Amino acid sequence: MSVTAAQGFRAAGITAGLKASGKPDLALVVNDGPRFDAAAVFTSNRVVGAPVMWSRQAVKDGAARAVVLNSGSANVCTGPGGFQDAHATAEAVADGLGIGAIDVLVASTGVIGVRLAREKLLAGVPVVTAALSHDPAAGQAAAAAIMTTDTVAKTATRTVETPDGVVTVGGMAKGAGMLAPALATMLCVITTDAVVPHEEADAVLRAATRTTFDRVDSDGCQSTSDTVVLMASGASGVAPGRDEFAAAVREVCADLVRQLLADAEGATHDIAITVKNATTEDAALAVARAVSRSNLVKAAIFGNDPNWGRILAQVGTVPEEVAPFDPEMLDIYVNSVKVCQAGGAHESPDKVDLASSREAAIDIDLHAGDADATLWTNDLTHAYVEENSAYTS
Amino acid sequence: MSVTAAQGFRAAGITAGLKASGKPDLALVVNDGPRFDAAAVFTSNRVVGAPVMWSRQAVKDGAARAVVLNSGSANVCTGPGGFQDAHATAEAVADGLGIGAIDVLVASTGVIGVRLAREKLLAGVPVVTAALSHDPAAGQAAAAAIMTTDTVAKTATRTVETPDGVVTVGGMAKGAGMLAPALATMLCVITTDAVVPHEEADAVLRAATRTTFDRVDSDGCQSTSDTVVLMASGASGVAPGRDEFAAAVREVCADLVRQLLADAEGATHDIAITVKNATTEDAALAVARAVSRSNLVKAAIFGNDPNWGRILAQVGTVPEEVAPFDPEMLDIYVNSVKVCQAGGAHESPDKVDLASSREAAIDIDLHAGDADATLWTNDLTHAYVEENSAYTS
Repeated sequence: MSVTAAQGFRAAGITAGLKASGKPDLALVVNDGPRFDAAAVFTSNRVVGAPVMWSRQAVKDGAARAVVLNSGSANVCTGPGGFQDAHATAEAVADGLGIGAIDVLVASTGVIGVRLAREKLLAGVPVVTAALSHDPAAGQAAAAAIMTTDTVAKTATRTVETPDGVVTVGGMAKGAGMLAPALATMLCVITTDAVVPHEEADAVLRAATRTTFDRVDSDGCQSTSDTVVLMASGASGVAPGRDEFAAAVREVCADLVRQLLADAEGATHDIAITVKNATTEDAALAVARAVSRSNLVKAAIFGNDPNWGRILAQVGTVPEEVAPFDPEMLDIYVNSVKVCQAGGAHESPDKVDLASSREAAIDIDLHAGDADATLWTNDLTHAYVEENSAYTS
Repeated sequence: MSVTAAQGFRAAGITAGLKASGKPDLALVVNDGPRFDAAAVFTSNRVVGAPVMWSRQAVKDGAARAVVLNSGSANVCTGPGGFQDAHATAEAVADGLGIGAIDVLVASTGVIGVRLAREKLLAGVPVVTAALSHDPAAGQAAAAAIMTTDTVAKTATRTVETPDGVVTVGGMAKGAGMLAPALATMLCVITTDAVVPHEEADAVLRAATRTTFDRVDSDGCQSTSDTVVLMASGASGVAPGRDEFAAAVREVCADLVRQLLADAEGATHDIAITVKNATTEDAALAVARAVSRSNLVKAAIFGNDPNWGRILAQVGTVPEEVAPFDPEMLDIYVNSVKVCQAGGAHESPDKVDLASSREAAIDIDLHAGDADATLWTNDLTHAYVEENSAYTS
């Protein structure tokens, strides 16, 4: 199940001809109401695509009735013409649905710096609109149409049972762990039939992405187009408790994030870096992020080598004002084996089995406070280098 | 010519048996005076090796008479025993030379977290001391004994002609561009026969390393053992002008840095990232460093792909408070071809020839001020991944 799992939503995915491969490349998700609450978070990159510029403005009123997404071109660094392309796309979708363009969000993914094939895209809009359906297959088709180098479509669903009835949260996402050619943009649409005022939707979405999408640092490269949209139709007539609803949205995000990591191009390991007993959550996250960006650590994990010296050296690069700790107190565990204690060698690295599982766990105990954070990354592999060097993308 | 080019210095390099390969692994550089001014800069990593802890204290008085360097073990994260190993090494060298241990600096490079073979090292000290010589060959032997994964020994010499006579500055360095297994430590010893008070030596060395060694970011991984030492014997009897002397030291450092980059393991390109017209030099450097750490940019250069979209996306990750600029004003040149103007596509990337030369130039014009900075990095290659994953190191 996907974005059509919740009541009040239709979706579709078709081939507009934007991709040379001829694979599906245009998706549409429509909220039929009765409510149109919406929230969205976008990349924090200062260089952003025209669709992000458009959608940031369009969602400001807390309402959206549709999201149109294309793969095949990111429409980034394309100047005023590119912004007109994004605007024209929203207008075309709005015309087909009989709504205002300001209620249509746009998201695009593909190569940077190339204008998209506007005529092909606009010609596809009536086709994708005509294909809109409540069917699970339609949700699946939308999820497939936003894929770039993804090898599988990524969807997730959760339900919340309340005394008043059941609420559904469904989502779809694309992105090859940000490891893909052309900064593989991460796009995500989450739908729900819960009755959720847009202010609450915004708060819930930000809280969920902060500990899910924001904690994936596959290759340290930030996209110019990342977009996560939440639309609430209210079609269930049920207003769930804030905590239960927030948990469901968070779970859908977390589920999609794990699917992104599992499909990360070239990667052979998903690595959970957990920093424990930091002075603050931000400090824990700063240490985890530093480790996640060490090519030496990532290459070692690819080689199934629990090289704690490289981990410790990377931890040491975090400034003291960012994360206070005593380097001589640090413990490091790799897959639960305490390979480093108090900054020195402890159990034999030979005890660590990294080869049997895709998932790897690095735990770093700073012994400085009581805040924890976990960040996910991937290993650095030959396939990553191949994907990102052998083809112009 | 090397560390023995300047008058007043002897050096030697021998095999003490610390390396399994049986290659030379113990070097000694001795200042015979008449002056013993010294300065040193060390890694800013919070996790540092025992030799760095020792040498930081030993050089605080502005004097040093010898530097003993070993490859085969970094002596990092080795606890109190490791510190005793470093101290014992300094003591042994001091005994052999009839000087105080506090005038002996220690530097080590190799795997982290493993105690060094103290008995072998101490047994080697009398041998390396007996081999000390003014000969150019002795300087070359010292440069060879500090190599780890370096494929060539790295030395450089400059002379300064003054009305009072000639002053010589010589240096040796090791480090495979910080791309090597086990965080290949960068070690460097610079000698001069100039008359240079230690305060001036310190200022000159810091100024030189700030724009040379500190501007190499081969793989973003910072060592726990980086050490650059300058010793001045005063044996020429000449006190050169500050500017001329500083220029010579800077040139020796720059020469050695280029040799480190050229020998960076796995690399096929040395990439000069120049950021122009930033508000401050720090802002320029922050942008250059962000770009130097993008695996997508580095992999693209390996693939001879002048992918300005990846460069621009990475520039956009630098916070505005760190480097103010308007993303829509940015120009990007790759090997002098203006592939991006005002944040959009300009000349065809097909005009860029990256394949014909190891050296590549990325120039980014921020149009925000008048400060410039250049940072050097290497590309991300299959060989880098192989070196850092296939062997436990």
